[in-house]
Amino acid sequence: MHNSPDLLMLRDKLRTFAEARDWNQFHSPKNLSMALMVEAAELMEHFQWLTEKQSADLDPAKKALVAEELADILLYLVRLSDKLDVDLLDAALNKLEKNAAKYPAEQVRGSAKKYSEY
Amino acid sequence: MHNSPDLLMLRDKLRTFAEARDWNQFHSPKNLSMALMVEAAELMEHFQWLTEKQSADLDPAKKALVAEELADILLYLVRLSDKLDVDLLDAALNKLEKNAAKYPAEQVRGSAKKYSEY
Amino acid sequence: MHNSPDLLMLRDKLRTFAEARDWNQFHSPKNLSMALMVEAAELMEHFQWLTEKQSADLDPAKKALVAEELADILLYLVRLSDKLDVDLLDAALNKLEKNAAKYPAEQVRGSAKKYSEY
Amino acid sequence: MHNSPDLLMLRDKLRTFAEARDWNQFHSPKNLSMALMVEAAELMEHFQWLTEKQSADLDPAKKALVAEELADILLYLVRLSDKLDVDLLDAALNKLEKNAAKYPAEQVRGSAKKYSEY
Repeated sequence: MHNSPDLLMLRDKLRTFAEARDWNQFHSPKNLSMALMVEAAELMEHFQWLTEKQSADLDPAKKALVAEELADILLYLVRLSDKLDVDLLDAALNKLEKNAAKYPAEQVRGSAKKYSEY
Repeated sequence: MHNSPDLLMLRDKLRTFAEARDWNQFHSPKNLSMALMVEAAELMEHFQWLTEKQSADLDPAKKALVAEELADILLYLVRLSDKLDVDLLDAALNKLEKNAAKYPAEQVRGSAKKYSEY
Repeated sequence: MHNSPDLLMLRDKLRTFAEARDWNQFHSPKNLSMALMVEAAELMEHFQWLTEKQSADLDPAKKALVAEELADILLYLVRLSDKLDVDLLDAALNKLEKNAAKYPAEQVRGSAKKYSEY
Repeated sequence: MHNSPDLLMLRDKLRTFAEARDWNQFHSPKNLSMALMVEAAELMEHFQWLTEKQSADLDPAKKALVAEELADILLYLVRLSDKLDVDLLDAALNKLEKNAAKYPAEQVRGSAKKYSEY
């Protein structure tokens, strides 16, 4: 995360947080990947019985709860990237380029069928 | 995401990407939360049969694959936050403060038991 | 699983399978819970870009793939229950009774709002 | 589920349960796959900070909680199989045969490396 000051800042805050609590012993990449997954499920749980339309139109109270889950996911993601020494922003930019090559706009445009097959 | 230029940049690239492919129709928060979850599972799959120790010592080839999964998660996270109009960095900073209050260092230090109970 | 001959039969087949491959060493409850989760994600992945309506009307090829994922989940579920010495059928029957008390039909009938709040 | 009286019995109880509450409208395969996933995460959450060894030695209170999560997963699995008209026991038996062919005992025996590569 050399090139994102904001993600670096979160990384450092998370390091301090874990060290102050002596929690590094629990933060193996294996365990952190489980924690991230559990947070992703807590996020999805908010949407599981909503229609797609309802999911795009949350009331403010629900939206605040959802924002906390999004935050939890980012925090574990930054923490896990730190433990694995992965530059998260670089990885995302590389993946975007790869996706652009994999899904050429003119071939996949507007087709649910094509989309779900990729 | 007013205050993170890097996350804003990713957000804009993802908007352009989806628009060029007419994929906004598939990007309901409900569907994006599912996609994020699936990526989180693909990440975790790399660790499921490893010991915690092995998970901290990946060979370069495996690490490259894991970095791609971390990237996918960040991309869906930014995309979903955009669709919900959530400032992801603000949300993360707020959550960190909340966590600091919830888990006082002097109370939870070094205790797996206490940790898992929280 | 005293009382379900079919689940007992699956349990025994899975025991034999793992023993023949010396895989008991990998089958901690922790690892099995991760494997079950990964299979649940592979199942869900088939539905992530489909509408609810489309998800109820799969073509035969897709349905065969989905059936394999359902099978994988059952197999890990039986295996994990065996490792934890939990009678899966008893647990399910107990949970059904608990749910009936928790969601009285006359109170929750037909209401998405109430449903999602429970 | 022609051939497992126990799973048929659960299927019928779940049908009655959903009908009495008018919940069929929420039980699209898409939604049920999300619910199953959320339950799988709740199960895994019990193990996320435990060592593998600890996960195999739960105290009775924890074990009772875990048994409920196992039950929830089975219930959604049976319900989803019903909605998709998949015979869950047949699917599991077919998958076991497929796995036996895919992982020949003499080739994969006792090797974590080979195991994780499959």
